[in-house]
Amino acid sequence: MMRFLLFGAGRAGAVHARNIARHPGAELAWVVDIDEAAARQTAARCGGRAAASAAEAWAADDFDAVLIASSTDTHVEFLRQALDAGKPTYCEKPIDLDIGRARAVTAEAERSGVPVLIGFRRRFLDDYRSVRRSIADGVVGPVETILVVARDHTPPPVSYVRVSGGLFRDKMIHYFDLVCWLTGERPVEVYATGACLVDPAIGQAGDVDTAMAMLRFPSGALCTIENGRRCSYGAEDRVEVFGARGLVRTQTPPAGHVQRLTAAGMERDRYTDNFGYEGFAGALDEFIAAVQEGRPVVPALQDGLQAQLVAEAAAESMREGRPIAITYGD
Amino acid sequence: MMRFLLFGAGRAGAVHARNIARHPGAELAWVVDIDEAAARQTAARCGGRAAASAAEAWAADDFDAVLIASSTDTHVEFLRQALDAGKPTYCEKPIDLDIGRARAVTAEAERSGVPVLIGFRRRFLDDYRSVRRSIADGVVGPVETILVVARDHTPPPVSYVRVSGGLFRDKMIHYFDLVCWLTGERPVEVYATGACLVDPAIGQAGDVDTAMAMLRFPSGALCTIENGRRCSYGAEDRVEVFGARGLVRTQTPPAGHVQRLTAAGMERDRYTDNFGYEGFAGALDEFIAAVQEGRPVVPALQDGLQAQLVAEAAAESMREGRPIAITYGD
Amino acid sequence: MMRFLLFGAGRAGAVHARNIARHPGAELAWVVDIDEAAARQTAARCGGRAAASAAEAWAADDFDAVLIASSTDTHVEFLRQALDAGKPTYCEKPIDLDIGRARAVTAEAERSGVPVLIGFRRRFLDDYRSVRRSIADGVVGPVETILVVARDHTPPPVSYVRVSGGLFRDKMIHYFDLVCWLTGERPVEVYATGACLVDPAIGQAGDVDTAMAMLRFPSGALCTIENGRRCSYGAEDRVEVFGARGLVRTQTPPAGHVQRLTAAGMERDRYTDNFGYEGFAGALDEFIAAVQEGRPVVPALQDGLQAQLVAEAAAESMREGRPIAITYGD
Amino acid sequence: MMRFLLFGAGRAGAVHARNIARHPGAELAWVVDIDEAAARQTAARCGGRAAASAAEAWAADDFDAVLIASSTDTHVEFLRQALDAGKPTYCEKPIDLDIGRARAVTAEAERSGVPVLIGFRRRFLDDYRSVRRSIADGVVGPVETILVVARDHTPPPVSYVRVSGGLFRDKMIHYFDLVCWLTGERPVEVYATGACLVDPAIGQAGDVDTAMAMLRFPSGALCTIENGRRCSYGAEDRVEVFGARGLVRTQTPPAGHVQRLTAAGMERDRYTDNFGYEGFAGALDEFIAAVQEGRPVVPALQDGLQAQLVAEAAAESMREGRPIAITYGD
Repeated sequence: MMRFLLFGAGRAGAVHARNIARHPGAELAWVVDIDEAAARQTAARCGGRAAASAAEAWAADDFDAVLIASSTDTHVEFLRQALDAGKPTYCEKPIDLDIGRARAVTAEAERSGVPVLIGFRRRFLDDYRSVRRSIADGVVGPVETILVVARDHTPPPVSYVRVSGGLFRDKMIHYFDLVCWLTGERPVEVYATGACLVDPAIGQAGDVDTAMAMLRFPSGALCTIENGRRCSYGAEDRVEVFGARGLVRTQTPPAGHVQRLTAAGMERDRYTDNFGYEGFAGALDEFIAAVQEGRPVVPALQDGLQAQLVAEAAAESMREGRPIAITYGD
Repeated sequence: MMRFLLFGAGRAGAVHARNIARHPGAELAWVVDIDEAAARQTAARCGGRAAASAAEAWAADDFDAVLIASSTDTHVEFLRQALDAGKPTYCEKPIDLDIGRARAVTAEAERSGVPVLIGFRRRFLDDYRSVRRSIADGVVGPVETILVVARDHTPPPVSYVRVSGGLFRDKMIHYFDLVCWLTGERPVEVYATGACLVDPAIGQAGDVDTAMAMLRFPSGALCTIENGRRCSYGAEDRVEVFGARGLVRTQTPPAGHVQRLTAAGMERDRYTDNFGYEGFAGALDEFIAAVQEGRPVVPALQDGLQAQLVAEAAAESMREGRPIAITYGD
Repeated sequence: MMRFLLFGAGRAGAVHARNIARHPGAELAWVVDIDEAAARQTAARCGGRAAASAAEAWAADDFDAVLIASSTDTHVEFLRQALDAGKPTYCEKPIDLDIGRARAVTAEAERSGVPVLIGFRRRFLDDYRSVRRSIADGVVGPVETILVVARDHTPPPVSYVRVSGGLFRDKMIHYFDLVCWLTGERPVEVYATGACLVDPAIGQAGDVDTAMAMLRFPSGALCTIENGRRCSYGAEDRVEVFGARGLVRTQTPPAGHVQRLTAAGMERDRYTDNFGYEGFAGALDEFIAAVQEGRPVVPALQDGLQAQLVAEAAAESMREGRPIAITYGD
Repeated sequence: MMRFLLFGAGRAGAVHARNIARHPGAELAWVVDIDEAAARQTAARCGGRAAASAAEAWAADDFDAVLIASSTDTHVEFLRQALDAGKPTYCEKPIDLDIGRARAVTAEAERSGVPVLIGFRRRFLDDYRSVRRSIADGVVGPVETILVVARDHTPPPVSYVRVSGGLFRDKMIHYFDLVCWLTGERPVEVYATGACLVDPAIGQAGDVDTAMAMLRFPSGALCTIENGRRCSYGAEDRVEVFGARGLVRTQTPPAGHVQRLTAAGMERDRYTDNFGYEGFAGALDEFIAAVQEGRPVVPALQDGLQAQLVAEAAAESMREGRPIAITYGD
């Protein structure tokens, strides 16, 4: 039984708490949130004890692993505590909005040998795994182009946008990681642009809500990622990968199975909008299994750093209106 | 160049005339219709000369083949003229509403050696050919069940229904032939039922406009055919064939390629309603090629007779309210 | 909190136990199975105590409701115990293989006023509810024809087939109920036929593994139901309902969201084969909610009896080779 | 009857000749090609007389309209002859590889008042018209993003690539026009990049075979166009337009209607690769109708010039590795 110290009882934290409670090989030991009432509510529902400070939990030291789903500005502090204590850690993305600090803690984690998984949960969705397998199986041939479209169903609160680091670091970072993972390549250049078309308040907070980034890979492959903050018909999250032999693609939002045919044409039900949530559970499963079996934990902090470097370059590209070369410093 | 004497300038006749005119190896020599104005109009558009009587054309004898698309009650007469003259003939279904006469002329054609194709044009549609090839390739395995759904977009005029021989002989006969052709088997029993749900005038004419027939094949395979006379979203004409290994199916009405996704779900354009018309041209191509190359002409009159025997049994089943064993007398 | 006495720790029982354990307003009090080890295992996983006899649980009387998922021949006995004790009951179908006993216990339940739900779980699937809503909303217009296709992924063990009452009472009964529920009508006549094409052992057990039944409704509507015991590509469970205005249909097995396009055509992943299981949870939810709110529990035993009368007539039709009129005796 | 002087008996010229021959209101008067044998062959098949020089046809002056489908470097010369003679003209794209000459002849055409249609035939495809209608009907809401994917099935010969003006002027120009036509806006900035991934010979000819261009519109809308020169599964030509209310998209290559379901998943036939050819006929129909009814001919030369200005900027962007502002000089 792997017992968890969970940091954060917000939206992502609540999902993780439920997944830990349901996992046959895991249970909640502690929930820590600055809002202690939220921590207590989560503990009541999913097990474990609640605390408002990390110190109380670390003093008890009756857990095996750490899950960091608190606000981004606390990630590095909790990560360092976990590294000091030698506890395997699942950390939500991004590592830290400051790329210097992100780089530093990534180096510390590597030196420490403590396994840390960065929460790029799309890697654990069946559809994306199937796409990657198709590429590996040669269905596509050498990859030539990739298109990604991902949109939230409804925009996040502006209070969240304000501390999120912006669309590239907060959302598109998932797809920067995804395309690296799918192709096995890292982009060498990015050109990005964006606009505020959904909600003026997002613009006033200094962010965009609609953006496109074009990546160029060492092999010559090209990629465009489109991200948006609102989508009337439900969240979008899809990719198509094209190459010499063919194309593999996922399709969201998948229409439901009920069709209505009338003189007006064909109409289909739509799915409910819960895409991506199953990725949390898949990532947790992998984290627990890898730690227990002593396998490397993937995606690692290094993957998180790398995707963030692309995001930094994308943000710079938009700011300066020109393509930016990406260097990884390794 | 194969020159044609065409009987009938009605709906089917007009399509055949156009297909003959477009065929690089064929041309119209004569169009014969009791409505001589219709014959003249067709000849003006598609070539050849018009006549109100068959005698005029036979006297000229400047053609190589005969295409019979006149009203059903004239088929046998024109067929016999063609057999006497030794002219290869394409004959629309059914052979004759009187099964005895249909059987007699089929026997005469077989004795004469003159090639006669019966117009089961669904055999020439790409989709149905693809289904048959999949069965032959073993994709489905031994056939266990078949479902057919076919509906007209709008009902035919009641004047037509009155002389059509009824839904089983006029429409379902196409699918009786189709399932025999797909499976290579002939049904041994049929149970059929129907209702008048679309247009009371069809019921007053002694026919049904909605019907289902269930067939049993010697192998144990079961089949249900549903036919209807009206379909709000366009004509339906599809089949699914199931067996030990899998299922192969066609889909109509195929929705168009344009999708609209909104908060209400997904909606697709619909196709225009011209399904099945390309079958006319495919059947003509095969007739001309088979005659020119001296190959047997298929489907032959014998296939027409066989499907009609199933239709007779289906009509009897509905009338008597019990399953009817089918005998083919061969 | 509604506490349950669960009869049966087999396949269906295990699913119910898990659903009770997960339901925020329910918990397992007792699991009773003649295989006491199975009962203990289920209790260990999902809560409650295990017993090999009903008497022990009834003596304790520390539960609020009964769930009968034991073998069919025990349904009536446990139902009568529940009626005597006045406990609301969820009962798996069929009520009893003997139609006389089924009718008797249905009458007793009605007299008692104790709520009893019969486990036609397809009524609780989102897709079928969407179809029914479309019909109610007039999308289809007056219903004219219905086609149902349902197949198991793999055949049940022959030991199960032997005591199942046969394909019509065991499997097709779900769809007899479904089409009554969708249309609001009860069929007046059925013609059914079947074959043993999947597994000769099923034939030796006196059953068929492939069957079609054709129903006629008072409105004139026609319906064909196809059922089979094996399907290479996963379970099938779909319906299409056609009427004057259009068609509404569900589609299984729904292909997955990943498409591969190559020179050979388009290929899609397939879904895993868990169709229908979510229906168990939906039915339990409704049972608990209806009992707690004092609403009538639907589908009731009467619905179970009615569908079974259709199944009896279908079995008789196949046996005698003729259509059978259905009477409901009410 | 509108009689045509056709310049060019190559691939596009042959399609136009056939469409003119089939059009009930048009016929071929002259076919002019420097390869006189090709001209003679086309005339033999589709009517009219053949000539190796324009002078012979202009001397006869027995035609009403001009269709220019010869090599790009001859467009301006023949256009000027048609303007001098006052003959309505259908001109294939691009106007001229030299933007200065293209601009000059566009101005001359406008001064002359002679109707000239530029052959952006995608505007005449049913699917794209349906998309435009959906936008106009408000299905999408204000347009926020557009994605276009278009690929040839097989690459053109390198001899053609060498004189084509490059991928942006030769192929992507169609989609620059398409997105302007769909949105009613002209882009203000373009960033483009490309690679030679399909055929090294294309690279040696100084062109790319894979490219992406990102456009920014005055409204803030963003657009990415992906073009390629080879696609294993058939030509691609699709668009998706997203906005506040929803998304409308076309889908190519549309899979065929035949599905095969087996334990391996679902597989579909593919369509034959003739996408886009029907656009030629639609454009011709519109040209003839507009001229006869005295309506403005659309798309006009001005539209051709405008799309070419975008293509010039895209080529410059790729060359210089930075986004380029687009000015239209009007």
